[in-house]
Amino acid sequence: MNNISIILVNPQMGENIGASARAMKNFGLKDLRIVAPRDGWPNEKARNMSVGALDLIEAAKLYDNLPAALGDLEYVYATTASSRDMNKNYVLSRGLSADIPPTSNVGIMFGRENCGLNNAEISYANKILTIDTDLNFTSLNIAHAVAVVCYEIWSGYNKQVRRDLCNKQELANANQMEYFYNYLFAELEQHDFFRVPEKKEQMQQKIRNIFTRIEGLSSAELQILMGTIKALSKQKE
Amino acid sequence: MNNISIILVNPQMGENIGASARAMKNFGLKDLRIVAPRDGWPNEKARNMSVGALDLIEAAKLYDNLPAALGDLEYVYATTASSRDMNKNYVLSRGLSADIPPTSNVGIMFGRENCGLNNAEISYANKILTIDTDLNFTSLNIAHAVAVVCYEIWSGYNKQVRRDLCNKQELANANQMEYFYNYLFAELEQHDFFRVPEKKEQMQQKIRNIFTRIEGLSSAELQILMGTIKALSKQKE
Repeated sequence: MNNISIILVNPQMGENIGASARAMKNFGLKDLRIVAPRDGWPNEKARNMSVGALDLIEAAKLYDNLPAALGDLEYVYATTASSRDMNKNYVLSRGLSADIPPTSNVGIMFGRENCGLNNAEISYANKILTIDTDLNFTSLNIAHAVAVVCYEIWSGYNKQVRRDLCNKQELANANQMEYFYNYLFAELEQHDFFRVPEKKEQMQQKIRNIFTRIEGLSSAELQILMGTIKALSKQKE
Repeated sequence: MNNISIILVNPQMGENIGASARAMKNFGLKDLRIVAPRDGWPNEKARNMSVGALDLIEAAKLYDNLPAALGDLEYVYATTASSRDMNKNYVLSRGLSADIPPTSNVGIMFGRENCGLNNAEISYANKILTIDTDLNFTSLNIAHAVAVVCYEIWSGYNKQVRRDLCNKQELANANQMEYFYNYLFAELEQHDFFRVPEKKEQMQQKIRNIFTRIEGLSSAELQILMGTIKALSKQKE
């Protein structure tokens, strides 16, 4: 379970960061990443609420933007309460532990207390994770969401026989994917692909949502994709 | 699930009562019973932390002793973190929903924040309920414990009902994919991508293997991919 990271995106209350750390430790997770916490870092309220999990708070990694927090991860889930108008696969919490690629570095993102993750942030994820709640009241406290997800991982980890991937190739990580997207978007820009400027960002999100759904993309395969983009964007001979 | 009650025994902090009510409502439970809360009742902090579950707080039943709170219940669980030196059957959280007698009025007791339930209180229970945690750190926040238990009950009763989240978009079919590959391969050919003729077929297979792993690619998304290929393969402007 050392391959699974919890990422809190722009959390607002220190108490919730502390409570999340405590829940992580209850269920055997260690790597806490915090992106742009509203009240800065370190945070005394986070320390107080972590109770016996102060070690996780002190070892938490701080980032000022989401791509930096995801850099070394190979498979990322975005936790959302409701379905989004987005063509992205989702997994219900009950199926999470069976869904997690066992040999990858995995991250699970949680959004801010008042409005969750936005669509741009979700577009970085390979899959949406939805906690199975009563549809009449889907809004979970963020630390409760972290607790339930970590509990699911722990319960699955300790019970199920892990699926073994036949694919042992080194997977493309988020930094490599980012390099690819930047290259692709720059070339598309130069080829006048984004004709309507106000739709450019949305179109980029759609493109990310396509490529993030390639299951188990290896570094070697990403090189092939890069090669196709490079070749296509050159002048014909 | 209307036959299942949550009983907080001598809770100390109003915030935890409110957070517990919210978690109950997330997972479809309604009947909250509070035995001798330290700070009296009603409690403003409980109301504030309940967020959208104020209805549960306002309908909560208050008791000054445990037997009164259990009076109409037919089967009672006592939640404890560790096993006690007590000859009583126990169930792990993962097996809870299968263990609950379906036609009985059932109560699940949670103890005070600092020391849980005492042995006298546990003796009122038919069975001990233990949340499956990392044995190195078994002390859960009380509202997290309520959240995990309610989640287990909900998941047990509602196995994978949220199929409504499934994507309803029209998927790209094999003919459309074939048209895409043919277009892509032709453009790559013209851009001198397949430099080693005897490796051309193998390279085409590798490219197919990448794009076939995009889960649930819609027709609309395939059009976006076609658009990127067309744009890239044009001369720069």
